[in-house]
Amino acid sequence: MRMVDLIEKKRDGEPLTTEEIQFIVEGYTEDSIPDYQVSALLMAIYFQGMTEKERADLTMAMASSGDQIDLRAIGGIKVDKHSTGGVGDTTTLVLGPLVAAAGVPVAKMSGRGLGHTGGTVDKLEAVAGFHAEITNEQFIALVNKNKLAVIGQSGNLTPADKKLYALRDVTATVNSIPLIASSIMSKKIAAGADAIVLDVKTGAGAFMKTLEDSKELAQAMVNIGNNIGRKTMAVISDMSQPLGFAIGNALEVKEAIDTLKGEGPEDLTELCLVLGSHMVYAAGRADSLEAARQMLITIIHNGEALQKFKVFIEAQGGDSSIVDHPDKLPQAKYKIELPAKEDGWVAEIVADHVGTAAMWLGAGRTTKDSDIDLAVGIQLNKKIGESVKSGESLASIYSNSEENEQVIEQLYRSILLSKEKVQPPVLIHGEITG
Amino acid sequence: MRMVDLIEKKRDGEPLTTEEIQFIVEGYTEDSIPDYQVSALLMAIYFQGMTEKERADLTMAMASSGDQIDLRAIGGIKVDKHSTGGVGDTTTLVLGPLVAAAGVPVAKMSGRGLGHTGGTVDKLEAVAGFHAEITNEQFIALVNKNKLAVIGQSGNLTPADKKLYALRDVTATVNSIPLIASSIMSKKIAAGADAIVLDVKTGAGAFMKTLEDSKELAQAMVNIGNNIGRKTMAVISDMSQPLGFAIGNALEVKEAIDTLKGEGPEDLTELCLVLGSHMVYAAGRADSLEAARQMLITIIHNGEALQKFKVFIEAQGGDSSIVDHPDKLPQAKYKIELPAKEDGWVAEIVADHVGTAAMWLGAGRTTKDSDIDLAVGIQLNKKIGESVKSGESLASIYSNSEENEQVIEQLYRSILLSKEKVQPPVLIHGEITG
Repeated sequence: MRMVDLIEKKRDGEPLTTEEIQFIVEGYTEDSIPDYQVSALLMAIYFQGMTEKERADLTMAMASSGDQIDLRAIGGIKVDKHSTGGVGDTTTLVLGPLVAAAGVPVAKMSGRGLGHTGGTVDKLEAVAGFHAEITNEQFIALVNKNKLAVIGQSGNLTPADKKLYALRDVTATVNSIPLIASSIMSKKIAAGADAIVLDVKTGAGAFMKTLEDSKELAQAMVNIGNNIGRKTMAVISDMSQPLGFAIGNALEVKEAIDTLKGEGPEDLTELCLVLGSHMVYAAGRADSLEAARQMLITIIHNGEALQKFKVFIEAQGGDSSIVDHPDKLPQAKYKIELPAKEDGWVAEIVADHVGTAAMWLGAGRTTKDSDIDLAVGIQLNKKIGESVKSGESLASIYSNSEENEQVIEQLYRSILLSKEKVQPPVLIHGEITG
Repeated sequence: MRMVDLIEKKRDGEPLTTEEIQFIVEGYTEDSIPDYQVSALLMAIYFQGMTEKERADLTMAMASSGDQIDLRAIGGIKVDKHSTGGVGDTTTLVLGPLVAAAGVPVAKMSGRGLGHTGGTVDKLEAVAGFHAEITNEQFIALVNKNKLAVIGQSGNLTPADKKLYALRDVTATVNSIPLIASSIMSKKIAAGADAIVLDVKTGAGAFMKTLEDSKELAQAMVNIGNNIGRKTMAVISDMSQPLGFAIGNALEVKEAIDTLKGEGPEDLTELCLVLGSHMVYAAGRADSLEAARQMLITIIHNGEALQKFKVFIEAQGGDSSIVDHPDKLPQAKYKIELPAKEDGWVAEIVADHVGTAAMWLGAGRTTKDSDIDLAVGIQLNKKIGESVKSGESLASIYSNSEENEQVIEQLYRSILLSKEKVQPPVLIHGEITG
């Protein structure tokens, strides 16, 4: 098999076979196929697309390109959730304890990541003592005992995907639905999920800016999952503004606790109920989505969700007293309010820009090795559609620096008021179950 | 300027600016832009094409990526001819002396090349003593004196094109009209041509198999030439069968001499008259194509063309007595005839396969460093449309090996007879002058 012939085949719109895709992914992983041939193939894929079968083959080839997590020692159907990323997305922190309390085993492998804030592991480290560097055996034992554990991403998971992603990033081939979908799904498969619930964000703050593209990506991932025998469904949720109020690591832990108490932001709570219902239903813990939703509401109201969070935190060395005393979480030195300059309605909160402001404060990493400040961030006080009086605080800035002019200006540019009443955005834009 | 942004721009169908193309070609030549970004760009160009302006810019950027030959010290309009390659193409050997005898300065830079036979320099080396390794000063002095000299390709001509071509070859991006056209034209520009006559081959033995593709390539090159101020025209000529009778180095020299004497194959003679007329007319040595043609016919008949060939050969150290004593050219040990197995008409001569047979005999290089045998080759005795009696020789094989079974079988597979009368193919499929 010659790589140049496979590039030509794809260039001419012919589908590649399972063996050909395997040859490419293996060859690239072990450096026997050079970058310059793979980038030409990626551009050909950009233009010619991939069939359903090719997408499934690519996903499986990437999933098996490195280590794979074996979760068979955990009883029950392991359901993983994946979000395509946005600003202020605290769903993972809420959903873990919430669905674990409903009896769904949650074996969460999570990274640190680059972005506006840290990853799930970073956020949890805002809880003193918490650590995700546990062995695979400890991880499995904890999930079997508590139904919930989080382990830091380690080992050689989907090296083909890592290499391909780095190449796509510098060759203008990121933006291809089959490549995006296969990349995400390969990681979920390698991480051992039996069933997968996808939260595909849509809107200005999301990777996919239009509803059409978001639906296409969601459908592509659901098809891949179902074609390779993993029950997969997707919720398309709004990211025209940040989700919830908090953008920052400790701030999001606090927000997650509030939500588990039933006192969280309306949009975050609702999205967690929708995603959580799918997870509970996929795990076979409820007979219908409606029953699953009722179960989750009950679990929040009777305190079991919050209790599960405490048990989970303690099991991984964390100080669970932060749940009742959130002032024990890392605190920023300065809190600066952002007073509205006029009366009106919030018309727009440019999620990307608010995220960038949080990163400037130090909440996120700019490079793989940079430190993050767990205490800092932004707390929105108003969301789109809310009315505001001149002087009322639009947002609170939590900073460890005396110099916050740049952040303040960025937020004023990001939170736009209207003289006319504005409707809040729809939260759930669609659900794709097959 | 970031290469990834330029790839994205082209991917999205937007034209690149002159500066952007310059940045890419310079960066790639000096290794500051990696192969994997350039191959992604090439594939994007494959799908999105290039505007007229982009093609001209790419041609000029590649032409100026290395050395450029300065022919200003030669008086008159220097006209170069380029053929897109085929089997048994002896036109260069004929046209040089022919148009030089008509007063057109021919400063021919020529390579050795890979292929069914050697390049022009190899063929000329079949003449004992001839050498093309002369200095630029000698080259220019010879052209000024005799109107004709051939110099071996040396120096660092169009390194960007060389690098790009090598990359295209392994990334399935050879077959793109704008890239092919810019590649050819950049070499002609760097070689110092004032005007360019293109011989674009079409048919089974050509790079472009269909007339439509050949016309598109011809038009693309003519437009590039005219857009950058070099008078350019193209003839689209038939390559459904080999041109002339000879495929082999010494054999083609002999055929060129015959043609300069007015005793050459009909198709080769006619194509040389057509291309030569364009060259003479472009050089301003005749008022019309018809006058140019008459001039060339006269020059052949009065012996001036053949005399010019002798002077040219001698000036570069060659033994011109081969003109009157062609048996002084390298002779193969064995001459094997290929008798027709039945009566009929020649219906097809698969040029590529005949070329391959010549290469098996040793007439061409299989790798850059392999030796070639100047004596060997194939002489066709019949062309498409000719009638054949059983036992008549279809072709003569000139070989230095006792083992010729493979070549004989290949030729029988390549030269196909029909029971029905067959029309010979049209030789000139079109001319594009602007």
